[in-house]
Amino acid sequence: MLSFTCDYNEGAHPAILERLLASNLEQVPGYGADPYTRSAKDRIRQALNRPEADVFFLTGGTQTNATVISAVLKGYEGAVAAQTGHIAVHEAGAVEFTGHKVLTLPQHQGKMDAAELEAFLEGFYAEPAYDHMVFPGLVYISFPTEYGTIYTKAELEALHAVCKRYKLPLYIDGARLGYGLMSPECDFTFQELAGLCDVFTIGGTKVGALCGEAVVFPGGNAPAHFFTTIKQHGALLAKGRLTGIQFDVLFTDNLYFKISRNAIDMAMQLKAMFRRKGYELFLDSPTNQQFVVLDDAAMAVLAPQVAFEIWEHRPDGRTVVRFATSWATTPEQLARLEAMLP
Amino acid sequence: MLSFTCDYNEGAHPAILERLLASNLEQVPGYGADPYTRSAKDRIRQALNRPEADVFFLTGGTQTNATVISAVLKGYEGAVAAQTGHIAVHEAGAVEFTGHKVLTLPQHQGKMDAAELEAFLEGFYAEPAYDHMVFPGLVYISFPTEYGTIYTKAELEALHAVCKRYKLPLYIDGARLGYGLMSPECDFTFQELAGLCDVFTIGGTKVGALCGEAVVFPGGNAPAHFFTTIKQHGALLAKGRLTGIQFDVLFTDNLYFKISRNAIDMAMQLKAMFRRKGYELFLDSPTNQQFVVLDDAAMAVLAPQVAFEIWEHRPDGRTVVRFATSWATTPEQLARLEAMLP
Amino acid sequence: MLSFTCDYNEGAHPAILERLLASNLEQVPGYGADPYTRSAKDRIRQALNRPEADVFFLTGGTQTNATVISAVLKGYEGAVAAQTGHIAVHEAGAVEFTGHKVLTLPQHQGKMDAAELEAFLEGFYAEPAYDHMVFPGLVYISFPTEYGTIYTKAELEALHAVCKRYKLPLYIDGARLGYGLMSPECDFTFQELAGLCDVFTIGGTKVGALCGEAVVFPGGNAPAHFFTTIKQHGALLAKGRLTGIQFDVLFTDNLYFKISRNAIDMAMQLKAMFRRKGYELFLDSPTNQQFVVLDDAAMAVLAPQVAFEIWEHRPDGRTVVRFATSWATTPEQLARLEAMLP
Amino acid sequence: MLSFTCDYNEGAHPAILERLLASNLEQVPGYGADPYTRSAKDRIRQALNRPEADVFFLTGGTQTNATVISAVLKGYEGAVAAQTGHIAVHEAGAVEFTGHKVLTLPQHQGKMDAAELEAFLEGFYAEPAYDHMVFPGLVYISFPTEYGTIYTKAELEALHAVCKRYKLPLYIDGARLGYGLMSPECDFTFQELAGLCDVFTIGGTKVGALCGEAVVFPGGNAPAHFFTTIKQHGALLAKGRLTGIQFDVLFTDNLYFKISRNAIDMAMQLKAMFRRKGYELFLDSPTNQQFVVLDDAAMAVLAPQVAFEIWEHRPDGRTVVRFATSWATTPEQLARLEAMLP
Repeated sequence: MLSFTCDYNEGAHPAILERLLASNLEQVPGYGADPYTRSAKDRIRQALNRPEADVFFLTGGTQTNATVISAVLKGYEGAVAAQTGHIAVHEAGAVEFTGHKVLTLPQHQGKMDAAELEAFLEGFYAEPAYDHMVFPGLVYISFPTEYGTIYTKAELEALHAVCKRYKLPLYIDGARLGYGLMSPECDFTFQELAGLCDVFTIGGTKVGALCGEAVVFPGGNAPAHFFTTIKQHGALLAKGRLTGIQFDVLFTDNLYFKISRNAIDMAMQLKAMFRRKGYELFLDSPTNQQFVVLDDAAMAVLAPQVAFEIWEHRPDGRTVVRFATSWATTPEQLARLEAMLP
Repeated sequence: MLSFTCDYNEGAHPAILERLLASNLEQVPGYGADPYTRSAKDRIRQALNRPEADVFFLTGGTQTNATVISAVLKGYEGAVAAQTGHIAVHEAGAVEFTGHKVLTLPQHQGKMDAAELEAFLEGFYAEPAYDHMVFPGLVYISFPTEYGTIYTKAELEALHAVCKRYKLPLYIDGARLGYGLMSPECDFTFQELAGLCDVFTIGGTKVGALCGEAVVFPGGNAPAHFFTTIKQHGALLAKGRLTGIQFDVLFTDNLYFKISRNAIDMAMQLKAMFRRKGYELFLDSPTNQQFVVLDDAAMAVLAPQVAFEIWEHRPDGRTVVRFATSWATTPEQLARLEAMLP
Repeated sequence: MLSFTCDYNEGAHPAILERLLASNLEQVPGYGADPYTRSAKDRIRQALNRPEADVFFLTGGTQTNATVISAVLKGYEGAVAAQTGHIAVHEAGAVEFTGHKVLTLPQHQGKMDAAELEAFLEGFYAEPAYDHMVFPGLVYISFPTEYGTIYTKAELEALHAVCKRYKLPLYIDGARLGYGLMSPECDFTFQELAGLCDVFTIGGTKVGALCGEAVVFPGGNAPAHFFTTIKQHGALLAKGRLTGIQFDVLFTDNLYFKISRNAIDMAMQLKAMFRRKGYELFLDSPTNQQFVVLDDAAMAVLAPQVAFEIWEHRPDGRTVVRFATSWATTPEQLARLEAMLP
Repeated sequence: MLSFTCDYNEGAHPAILERLLASNLEQVPGYGADPYTRSAKDRIRQALNRPEADVFFLTGGTQTNATVISAVLKGYEGAVAAQTGHIAVHEAGAVEFTGHKVLTLPQHQGKMDAAELEAFLEGFYAEPAYDHMVFPGLVYISFPTEYGTIYTKAELEALHAVCKRYKLPLYIDGARLGYGLMSPECDFTFQELAGLCDVFTIGGTKVGALCGEAVVFPGGNAPAHFFTTIKQHGALLAKGRLTGIQFDVLFTDNLYFKISRNAIDMAMQLKAMFRRKGYELFLDSPTNQQFVVLDDAAMAVLAPQVAFEIWEHRPDGRTVVRFATSWATTPEQLARLEAMLP
């Protein structure tokens, strides 16, 4: 059955599998000391034009968020996130497991507002008993957000400015980074991103890898002994070549961005298709996640033929569903979907 | 350069890569709900002849140890391990990070002694102020041990009997499980192993997989909601197919054991070769890790031509080094090594 | 300067100091094995008519909440609390420090609504990916709440019924328990309270003790080795006599309830006084915390003469302030306050 | 029955109770903002001649150790302690509960050896895979030790020098600090102590207080927001006056040292008495804990008449027992003991 449930339904981009195959019997050292990992780090630094950047590879998103956040925070600090932020809701308390609270702010189509962040921080320090409370120690946002929306450059600059004023690192969870950067509405580059935050991730799992997230501290500002922290969190691969090779391939000839672009092209066609057919969109997402409102009749027709994610049940009886495209989505799949649409 | 530094120098067994390739564009659900993961679990249950067993797949050894141990222990309990136990030394405090102490016992070529365990437990409860101390809550051993040695069936039975007497789960870290079971000195089967402990792991990373450890609760005795605990520990792969496919292949046609056997065959030849040439063995290891004592002359000849791990510097100036064979070791590699030996 | 800032401005009830003095040079064992602690536990069991109850003494409220909650929860569970719950806001992340998330529900004058709790729990288990989220593992309420309000018996029964349906322990933080039970609006007894929850605390610090909170598991349902957990959390006094003697005195001749009653009598007079003088009350609190709305003129007159807590600044420029009475408040203090009121 | 089981059998020094009584109805702010706490901190700074010192008051020893250690350590670090160190054995895993390993070194009558510490640190960094292991992040010793022994000034200087070389804070647990400093064998002063370490505690519970430990960062080097960390660890008293008053009294007119001296005088007489009577001493302790070897006959006579702590059972059938004197021990008690000695 055709599936648009998420952007990790398929395996890996074929070029990754090829390279895994080609290098398979080479003997290389473990724990990221192999030449592939070294090369992958260099390519990312080059793509960012930041030779000083610290780059690390971990395997999964929850793991990466918990490891980065707990390494950056001091014991008495928490992470500030939007109410719908992934770390606030869908990570089984992984951040709290490391001993830190997630402090939540309102969300606007998944985004945090710089003015609201500033008001929160001002209010925190204005509170007489603030030292009985969890200190905000880092600001977490994701790009794109849970709703597929993206921040503009001005919005990121505003958030980063507030963060700097309060000496808070800004952390961007880029589990779907490529899909955000390749959106037609994105008004900044990968290189500019590195200047708009203090640490960010480059998601592999949802963008063509079997597994793997790159963590980038663009100013060479990784916490001391971050390698050991990764090990302690159970996030260090013995065969570091597995993530090294994948990111090496993804950052060769811009593959990461090319395949991200495919997902966006497909998503824009999918959105246009739903609009043409008169469907209501839940919100106007500029990335690979598209949210469509279906009535019972449409649900009855589609559900048996194509897989998608139920997002929420509306009071009027209709259902918001999510269609996610990916690096692997093809025009043929869209044509099949279109043929099904009532 | 030829390398015997460890058993994870190569990529994956070719059959694994083939299957990854063949299934690559199939769309399957994430988080272990895919058919490959289901099949892999079934094959492990069949190999154990335990349809009731709970099976989970994680990515790495440290992660697996920390997740299992903290899920099994109560808050006031610690894990009992040999002084040289992996969790006691080489995991960057991953168990302590979850809030639990590692309680150590003496080691005998890496092994824990059942009588010493019993004496420790007796002594603990005889101590008037034992409730001011960390309760032993689980016994951790590895099979094979850090020294490549293995427990006999009688030794495991003795340990397990003590554990049962004190109601402590016995946990066997099987990061190199296949190499232990295929040793000519191993006097029990994979199926029997499941009856000799309460939870054990089947190491993939060191036995032919790119990554992956299977956790088996042979009696269906997994802690409640262990899936969520895995997620919370950052140990859940979005593309569960990655570990599912690997273990599905490894447990098809006994591949796991066949390739483990190759490592053992090669290790026995390597050991015989060193003996023939008059080298002293540090201990008589029955598995894929062989420990040889080299003098300066031998070091000077070998070090530039073949990689191995320095184990310890002896007071007499000689060096104990480790040669590890693996599923991928070939007779040609042994022949090359032999040609180098002074 | 006269102070109504909180209910722990004074030292201890004189009867407590007398007994500390009288017993001072007796040699008794440490860690709660002394006769005073034994007697105090017995008196609490008698007052509850529950010989089976487990009783423990800790020193402070934050400590008690974190210790109880983390001992009761499993690793993958969190505590459900109202948004304004003490553990959600004012305890510096003490619960998260133990690895657990606080899941928040709306508050209604500080109270949690049983129907909203049920809807939340229903919604949680209806969520397809609930096993990627923190499981609700315990319900936390305080009696009285942060706003001085109290639950009726029917409201507690409703909450407890929901908890039982979902097998969640109901935990009542009674830091100000006496002030709630002695409220004229409280429609149940201390003995009935024990049947309305699974674990509760009897606050000493705010009700006449120098320090000390009693934890009661009314059905003898304390977690295994809770003593050791108390020690591990740094919450075990070497001189257990200090809390033992205090609770022994407080539960002799109903002292705890008598002095709580004084605070309530004084609070009701204070409330009446403000009403008589035409002040607006922020809410109609039935306990020892009274919330009054002051304009700038009143603030200017009062602030230099009497201490109180600023609760919140209203958009209309007026200020909500809190006056807290206690076991030590006297009619003379009220008269002095009345004389100041403009 | 006469008791020498420990140094916290009695309540508080009478001067403390007097002051608690005299100040009881004064209304003062909570959480350490009261004038008594301020005064106590000043007196300690004066006694140390260090106006820059940061001083905090907590309630118990385990709590203090866990709070200080986890505030000072980074996430990937552990605390180095002697095998017999209190944190290694008798604190129910309180340090591990905060996520940190206790790394142990051999003990010599309870003491850590500077050369062994240096060798351990050298060895750690010489280990090729040290970044897979827990980093030593702080050195913990107690003064006096678990065996009542004390470090000489030269020994502390040697330890401190090693610590500085490796940039490790040296933390001295002074639960019995007064008893160490007042020992006839102690060759340095309270003021000098502050220069021999980076953080130390002044034990109140065992030296005349009802409860309370002072934490001193002599160079004003407290971790940022240590107040909030104290709160988060459940170690902050609402009625901070309780510890404030006690330390204010203890540091008025040198009371802390005077009463410590009494314990030492009594201990020296007790030791002399046992020697005179021909008893074997287990070790020659210079402080308030005296270890005597008793045969069965002596045990049979003494056990029914006087309480003491069983330290260990010797292979020859005899028993090592501990007699602890305290600030409250009197010549009459010694005389009664002498009369009992067979």
